[in-house]
Amino acid sequence: MRAVVYRGPGDLDITDVPEGEVGPGEVRLRVGFNGICGSDLHEYYAGPIFIPNGEKHPLTGRELPLTLGHEFSGTVVEIGAGVEGVTEGDRVAVMPLYTCGTCSRCSEGRYNVCAQIGFHGLMADGGMAETTVVPAHMLHPLPENVSLEMGALVEPMAVAYHAAELGGVNPGDTALVFGAGPIGIGLWFALRGMGVEDVRVVEPSATRRGAIERLGAHTLDPSAQDVPAIVAEATNGRGADACYDAAGVAPAVATALDSLGAGRPMVSVAIYETPLVTPLLNLVLGESRIQGSLCYTHADYRAVIELMANGHYDTTGWMEKIAMRDVVEEGFEALHAGRKMKVLVDPSLA
Amino acid sequence: MRAVVYRGPGDLDITDVPEGEVGPGEVRLRVGFNGICGSDLHEYYAGPIFIPNGEKHPLTGRELPLTLGHEFSGTVVEIGAGVEGVTEGDRVAVMPLYTCGTCSRCSEGRYNVCAQIGFHGLMADGGMAETTVVPAHMLHPLPENVSLEMGALVEPMAVAYHAAELGGVNPGDTALVFGAGPIGIGLWFALRGMGVEDVRVVEPSATRRGAIERLGAHTLDPSAQDVPAIVAEATNGRGADACYDAAGVAPAVATALDSLGAGRPMVSVAIYETPLVTPLLNLVLGESRIQGSLCYTHADYRAVIELMANGHYDTTGWMEKIAMRDVVEEGFEALHAGRKMKVLVDPSLA
Repeated sequence: MRAVVYRGPGDLDITDVPEGEVGPGEVRLRVGFNGICGSDLHEYYAGPIFIPNGEKHPLTGRELPLTLGHEFSGTVVEIGAGVEGVTEGDRVAVMPLYTCGTCSRCSEGRYNVCAQIGFHGLMADGGMAETTVVPAHMLHPLPENVSLEMGALVEPMAVAYHAAELGGVNPGDTALVFGAGPIGIGLWFALRGMGVEDVRVVEPSATRRGAIERLGAHTLDPSAQDVPAIVAEATNGRGADACYDAAGVAPAVATALDSLGAGRPMVSVAIYETPLVTPLLNLVLGESRIQGSLCYTHADYRAVIELMANGHYDTTGWMEKIAMRDVVEEGFEALHAGRKMKVLVDPSLA
Repeated sequence: MRAVVYRGPGDLDITDVPEGEVGPGEVRLRVGFNGICGSDLHEYYAGPIFIPNGEKHPLTGRELPLTLGHEFSGTVVEIGAGVEGVTEGDRVAVMPLYTCGTCSRCSEGRYNVCAQIGFHGLMADGGMAETTVVPAHMLHPLPENVSLEMGALVEPMAVAYHAAELGGVNPGDTALVFGAGPIGIGLWFALRGMGVEDVRVVEPSATRRGAIERLGAHTLDPSAQDVPAIVAEATNGRGADACYDAAGVAPAVATALDSLGAGRPMVSVAIYETPLVTPLLNLVLGESRIQGSLCYTHADYRAVIELMANGHYDTTGWMEKIAMRDVVEEGFEALHAGRKMKVLVDPSLA
């Protein structure tokens, strides 16, 4: 079968590989769609970062070369021994986490921050291929009215949903989202899904503001507007009930902390490439906090899929599909250059 | 009466001033002792910072020149009209906060971060004087077995107690305190008072380590020891249940975030002079958080005074008393140079 194999930075090989064996507890999926994630870009341009190199991952026993792809949906085409409750033809989203189950974090139920966490598509052959073999516990069935395109977006939307919940928001609150990339868009959908009407998306790029505005979002341009003053005015001086940093840059963090209400959180859902200069005094003076957010849980997957079934998510204007052969030029390079926002690889076009 | 009057940076005038009038709802205290605080040093060396200059404080109507001193105890010597439940001769600690009662923060009960907060001794004539006049609601009676020396320490110990509580610790937890100045010492006492046995104080100064070790504390030297590794080892890889930054410098913050368990807080109880380079990625990868802490509440005052009545606090080796005439050389300059840790001014020696 055709697959997108990562051999090292700048080296993506679209090639024929043998299909994996389906072991006990596993299923083979015919991949529906697979999204290209920011972390895939990091691996391509500056990796290997998460992809094991020279040492096999403790949970998967794998290292590069590996087939990329951890944001994917598919249809069950083969079922391994001992798998129950799964039928050939089931359409599924995949929660691509390998967790150890034994570390202190797993023991406390925090498997989304497992000390040995692995991803299907970074530490095992992933979804940028015609088929992939996954443990059955990763499967989340998709309702009839949720497409496989939408199913491939459950993963990034669950990242955002998980972060949205850590903000502890309630209907009637005012929330600020910094960054209108795919996670920022996911935060906007998640917060609206939680009943928060007043969500303002702070984004310096006019293109990205335009895209999320067409979905219905209220935006602010931090290069032209005084965001903290606007938020203070809108909240009678209280400040935002929650801020979300999906931008990962110092000006966003500083503006978020300046806009935040007393005792409230700024949730960080960004992969900060370097430590940032951070005005911690703001946290002290308002007894506010910065709360990290990583990955998702099965509950987040279920919540996002339910919202999708209710027609809550809309991919108009920010998602495109490409063939596997175009993955470098129309995928990685287009995303890296900012020409596209979210790209799904369609292996049926391989 | 004699008082220590702040006229501007580097200008402390130990001089005779008229006693204030006792208005309705107020009492006059004969000051027992008054501690010199780090914020007093900031005002002396780099002020005015909090002390109003050129604009009167909205709640007190005052600006410099002002008598310093917001950490003090005293004895009631005169009672204004309408004051109930206070008797001449009462020995008290003073919670020196002026709050507006009407801002969004006060409305939510967060008066310790009131948008207009003022301090008796920074925005009104304070306790570095023979007497001072305070609103009766600031008074906290001292039990018989709590000395006036100890009473003057309630304020900084309440700062630490408030922060300790924001860490959400439980008996059996492992806590790290960064910085063994007065607030670090207060954190150590507060955490022990909350039943946390395993408190480790991280401090690069051998003098400060020695002082807190003599109180019974377990210390770590971050310049010679691998703090995150030691904590990981001691907690079976879990990491600290709470870290407290009472140092306010980048290496302390970085080490704290490296030592912190998943989902746990680093409480910031420091006045950060500048934004620090902060490894926010640590927060994301462990879903941990940085929580700011400011001032105290009446409940914190009551809790500290009760612990004091139970003999929980010990000032051996870190507290000294001086006469008012020595306040610059033996107070501000000695503290600034690190020759002393905590200095109480005794106005009876004026």
